[in-house]
Amino acid sequence: MHKRIKLGMVGGGQGAFIGAVHRMAARLDDQFELVAGALSSNAERAAASGAELGIDPVRSYASFEEMAKAEAARKDGIQAVSVVTPNHMHYPVAKAFLEAGIHVICDKPLTSTLEDAIALGEIAKDSSAEFILTHNYSGYPMVRQAREMVRSGKIGNLRKVHVEYVQDWLSASISAGENKQADWRADPKRSGLGGAIADIGTHAFQLTDFICGEPLKELAADLTSFVAGRLVDDDAHMMLRYQNGAKGYLWASQVCPGNENGLRIRIFGENGGLEWHQENPNQLWVSMLGEPKQLLTRGGHRTGDLAKSVTRVPAGHPEGYLEGFATIYTEAANIIRSGRKPSDLSPTIEEGILGMRFIDAAIRSSNANAQWTPLG
Amino acid sequence: MHKRIKLGMVGGGQGAFIGAVHRMAARLDDQFELVAGALSSNAERAAASGAELGIDPVRSYASFEEMAKAEAARKDGIQAVSVVTPNHMHYPVAKAFLEAGIHVICDKPLTSTLEDAIALGEIAKDSSAEFILTHNYSGYPMVRQAREMVRSGKIGNLRKVHVEYVQDWLSASISAGENKQADWRADPKRSGLGGAIADIGTHAFQLTDFICGEPLKELAADLTSFVAGRLVDDDAHMMLRYQNGAKGYLWASQVCPGNENGLRIRIFGENGGLEWHQENPNQLWVSMLGEPKQLLTRGGHRTGDLAKSVTRVPAGHPEGYLEGFATIYTEAANIIRSGRKPSDLSPTIEEGILGMRFIDAAIRSSNANAQWTPLG
Amino acid sequence: MHKRIKLGMVGGGQGAFIGAVHRMAARLDDQFELVAGALSSNAERAAASGAELGIDPVRSYASFEEMAKAEAARKDGIQAVSVVTPNHMHYPVAKAFLEAGIHVICDKPLTSTLEDAIALGEIAKDSSAEFILTHNYSGYPMVRQAREMVRSGKIGNLRKVHVEYVQDWLSASISAGENKQADWRADPKRSGLGGAIADIGTHAFQLTDFICGEPLKELAADLTSFVAGRLVDDDAHMMLRYQNGAKGYLWASQVCPGNENGLRIRIFGENGGLEWHQENPNQLWVSMLGEPKQLLTRGGHRTGDLAKSVTRVPAGHPEGYLEGFATIYTEAANIIRSGRKPSDLSPTIEEGILGMRFIDAAIRSSNANAQWTPLG
Amino acid sequence: MHKRIKLGMVGGGQGAFIGAVHRMAARLDDQFELVAGALSSNAERAAASGAELGIDPVRSYASFEEMAKAEAARKDGIQAVSVVTPNHMHYPVAKAFLEAGIHVICDKPLTSTLEDAIALGEIAKDSSAEFILTHNYSGYPMVRQAREMVRSGKIGNLRKVHVEYVQDWLSASISAGENKQADWRADPKRSGLGGAIADIGTHAFQLTDFICGEPLKELAADLTSFVAGRLVDDDAHMMLRYQNGAKGYLWASQVCPGNENGLRIRIFGENGGLEWHQENPNQLWVSMLGEPKQLLTRGGHRTGDLAKSVTRVPAGHPEGYLEGFATIYTEAANIIRSGRKPSDLSPTIEEGILGMRFIDAAIRSSNANAQWTPLG
Repeated sequence: MHKRIKLGMVGGGQGAFIGAVHRMAARLDDQFELVAGALSSNAERAAASGAELGIDPVRSYASFEEMAKAEAARKDGIQAVSVVTPNHMHYPVAKAFLEAGIHVICDKPLTSTLEDAIALGEIAKDSSAEFILTHNYSGYPMVRQAREMVRSGKIGNLRKVHVEYVQDWLSASISAGENKQADWRADPKRSGLGGAIADIGTHAFQLTDFICGEPLKELAADLTSFVAGRLVDDDAHMMLRYQNGAKGYLWASQVCPGNENGLRIRIFGENGGLEWHQENPNQLWVSMLGEPKQLLTRGGHRTGDLAKSVTRVPAGHPEGYLEGFATIYTEAANIIRSGRKPSDLSPTIEEGILGMRFIDAAIRSSNANAQWTPLG
Repeated sequence: MHKRIKLGMVGGGQGAFIGAVHRMAARLDDQFELVAGALSSNAERAAASGAELGIDPVRSYASFEEMAKAEAARKDGIQAVSVVTPNHMHYPVAKAFLEAGIHVICDKPLTSTLEDAIALGEIAKDSSAEFILTHNYSGYPMVRQAREMVRSGKIGNLRKVHVEYVQDWLSASISAGENKQADWRADPKRSGLGGAIADIGTHAFQLTDFICGEPLKELAADLTSFVAGRLVDDDAHMMLRYQNGAKGYLWASQVCPGNENGLRIRIFGENGGLEWHQENPNQLWVSMLGEPKQLLTRGGHRTGDLAKSVTRVPAGHPEGYLEGFATIYTEAANIIRSGRKPSDLSPTIEEGILGMRFIDAAIRSSNANAQWTPLG
Repeated sequence: MHKRIKLGMVGGGQGAFIGAVHRMAARLDDQFELVAGALSSNAERAAASGAELGIDPVRSYASFEEMAKAEAARKDGIQAVSVVTPNHMHYPVAKAFLEAGIHVICDKPLTSTLEDAIALGEIAKDSSAEFILTHNYSGYPMVRQAREMVRSGKIGNLRKVHVEYVQDWLSASISAGENKQADWRADPKRSGLGGAIADIGTHAFQLTDFICGEPLKELAADLTSFVAGRLVDDDAHMMLRYQNGAKGYLWASQVCPGNENGLRIRIFGENGGLEWHQENPNQLWVSMLGEPKQLLTRGGHRTGDLAKSVTRVPAGHPEGYLEGFATIYTEAANIIRSGRKPSDLSPTIEEGILGMRFIDAAIRSSNANAQWTPLG
Repeated sequence: MHKRIKLGMVGGGQGAFIGAVHRMAARLDDQFELVAGALSSNAERAAASGAELGIDPVRSYASFEEMAKAEAARKDGIQAVSVVTPNHMHYPVAKAFLEAGIHVICDKPLTSTLEDAIALGEIAKDSSAEFILTHNYSGYPMVRQAREMVRSGKIGNLRKVHVEYVQDWLSASISAGENKQADWRADPKRSGLGGAIADIGTHAFQLTDFICGEPLKELAADLTSFVAGRLVDDDAHMMLRYQNGAKGYLWASQVCPGNENGLRIRIFGENGGLEWHQENPNQLWVSMLGEPKQLLTRGGHRTGDLAKSVTRVPAGHPEGYLEGFATIYTEAANIIRSGRKPSDLSPTIEEGILGMRFIDAAIRSSNANAQWTPLG
């Protein structure tokens, strides 16, 4: 008999973007039921948001601390919580729920500082609960396909990785209050020291790592704030060197007109190459040396089991962003139900700490005039 | 306070494709709760399917007649039912629920014969309940955008409509039992007289009608069964003449290798042209005479209110097939809640009857060697 | 030792478009030398045009009759003539040179009437000279590749042919004198009875024939003049039936905003499908049933000998319209030099007559309300 | 009266690739006549190659020194020479002809060492003859369009330049003798110290410079030889810093499977962005901040005068690699005829020296572990 996992949410009240995404993702495969929330740090907005979502007023809390305590005490308390606050709140919120033995599903980046990330890692280690980081782009079926092809040796020894995540929504200065998303992301106190490098650069980095699994040796980064008065980087790029001798390039920018959410990756080995674009996620270009390019599709011919297992509708019926996100949630549900440790397909706190080491190294390298810098 | 609409489902048990799609679509925007079902005509499979979906065994029925009766009698009975059976069952199932005063959300085509369609139309007229047909492709935001541009006169007087829906999954003969989807679609007793023309041609026809709204005057159709032994058409094409003098072409095929779900429409007026592809649904090409082509995107610049109102995530975060489908469901929920008649954005039984007239005319025209034939 | 073929030209003076194209095509592979011309029916413009092109004034003629006579009489007279006049002049000009024993390279369509075409066929039969029709699109390497694949049986029995040639430059009314190209094409006395069907429809038809070689059984055509006051069709479409049972669709339009020179063909057999677009001519999509789509490229992997033999620069260095055109000229040079009959890769007067039969049948069918009509 | 410029050629005999390209480019617009050559350093092959091209045997020389002397002495001697030898011969050959007062049209990169380049610059300064470098990609109309848009301020202050030139033909080891092109390019004695950086990196660099004109301040480069035993880099990438504060990235690789001749550039200013791909050269994506993307086409709407002036055939009739190359030649012809200095649209010896400084700086930076290095 099917039983939905009881879910709570911290953050994600009215006006927020990512909270609604997490809720749709949790709902799509019918694995979760949202029953509690501390949806805003503003008590009134928290209550109104909870009502709108059909949450029992008793379980619509004004603070996450209260929520963690109360839910842990209920017999029918939540089994997991989604953390969708600005970055600087990930640490205290996740800490509270991990310590209460409640599973945590947390948005990226893990925290706003590397110190917080490491500390949270220790807390997670001591907790009976699991910690899942929603690096949603690794939920796309054709990203899974790319992973399977690279890791099975299909393209041979890895030589080149070229990843970029390019947007344009911060090309011009945005006044305070005009855009809630822009506001906190541009404030180092809430987002952390990184701007584009943290907000989207970590996605790009995680994507390379998820697909290739080759450890990074060092990076040489150059971060820029193009828009006058901006306190964090809005463009970051860097050269990469991998331990096996492969080379790479990673670029994250939010000031390039004409780019909406341009996450693209190209990977080349000695025998073949792959190319994937997030905005057209149901396709994967595969180029084997000496052969014509092939276009693999989600659900299509020669697309393998790893991709198939996270495919909902047939080839040609496009799945998108929410479906990829939902896969992260559904895999979290499987972990929670089974009581097993996460497989390496689910991003966990280790990936989160690695992402923070990446941000930290990029900022240090850039501050040292793009000096080669290993992850700390 | 948020209350989900109580939903039942007929058909869509284990092994079915479209039932799962309807359930995901119903769930995505949190407007429905599946509480009852007659999920298979096989009692055992019906029970197993219900259990898998968490339906109370008491409300997991072995027949749709029983379900209609029992649910109508319950105080907490379903408010709406999804009909996702093979085509020939749409009529009796929809009839039972309409007569029980339960709203019907039904897959296309409306029925397997024009007679059934017309009869169902009468039943619907007499019922207090609404009838919504899931022509899901009209739920895509950029289809809404195209509609807004054509109907507001942006491209000027309509001249040409070119629509095609091309697949390849029936290119070769499929033995009975090998593919459940292929099975019933190829059996005139269950699908009706039309093959490709009914299964996907009606989608193509509805798409032109939804966007342009220009009445068809007549069509000249040529239907073919390419695969030996197939009893219905697997390729259908036709020239169209509209009442305003515009001309068109409609092509539906399931035997064209390299096409997964290739629904594409191009529309030309005296001042401009539009182009949309279902497999890349977040884009709409707009070409105004004398100007460079523009690429409008879901959530992007210059995309209008009609599209925005059915957009869930920002530009560059692709929405897909399930999101478009969910929009049909969510608009159905709004209708049910408000007690208002459907707006003309929601396909209803009239569109269903028109679609059956289209199939009927196409078959009659083809049988008369592609003679020009008006819709009956 | 390399000797260029001595070439003359009739038509193609100042202000003309296609004359310059023929000259570039003749020059590219260094097989021809332009030494004589009757470049305009206006004597003054003829002289000025000749001077501009470096033609000896003695050999810059005021009339084609004079030119045919004088050049035939010279010891160093031209071996071949390019005919690039409006359509209605093809017949008298070609006649004069064929009768003078001078090879003719003529633009399409062959003539302005079917009667002229048949008569010219007789003249050509009696002449010692060859007649080559510049159906330039058959000179593209990837069109040759498509031909090789279809004719060698790679895609299996032919089932569907879908060809379209869509432009927008005649979407609005063009006043007389405003555009020389538009002028004569819209005048039935100079272009013949067909508008779009003759100007570009014949290219589309020839392309299907060149690639597939399957004889057409009959067509049902609907021709339209959308622009008020236009005397010939500006949009023509038709359903096709081939002798082997294959079905097809051909569409030629000059009133579809956003289309520059959109010649596209899709061909489906029981085992595979092909797709080629003239505006991106270095690519050919190949889809074998049950396999991912492949992108073959000019000069690239798995592209065969027929394409290779007409390839000038390596893969990734795009060849275009002029190169395809030049291939027709270079193959004409090989024919002239060798004294051999044209291979079936070179379009000759037979293809020209077939093209005229196609125009004629399309107009007759359309006049009979799209009645099925065999080529005459 | 039209007079072709008398042209000689050094290099480009049988088996060479780029020589044939130069000859087609010289021929296309009918501005040059090839009348002399020293087509190979092998006397026998030189003679055979000359005969094949219809060159008078007297003017088919066994050595370039002899050719320079003899042609300078003839009353009807060549006015210009094309230099299409391996890189290390550019210097002595160009020197000989410049000192003989004969215009030089030379392939890139300018020389094999920076010292040679600087010395040749001095020689050119003292010569009455002009020196044109065939950076052919700057001949593409839509590259001219990009230049006009960037330099006229259309996209605002330059912020980001992202250029890549990616191929795959050297992905595997190539044995000596197997591929003549690969042979000399992989031999530092003949190509110079750079591999990919010199062969294609200079094209990428010149393209950024041609379009943007913003001086480079410094670069941080990482060069790699992925294929065992290769003596020069086969992959080179670098971060760029411009004097106005813009940042950039340049990548040249010959070991990335699936890339034929992937030269692509993206340029972003504070108000807009541009994107151009060499393999689809008739298009230019233009994205103005806050507006939908536009697709400008060669010959199409809103494409400006700079592009139009180098356009031969209408929109939708693709021009390619040879046409862009021909534009460099035709502009050289105009310079030679007019006796005027080259405009800044024609790449000259200054661009050649700058290109050599770029190679030199990239190699020095890479040898210093990607240290920031200004052009020397």
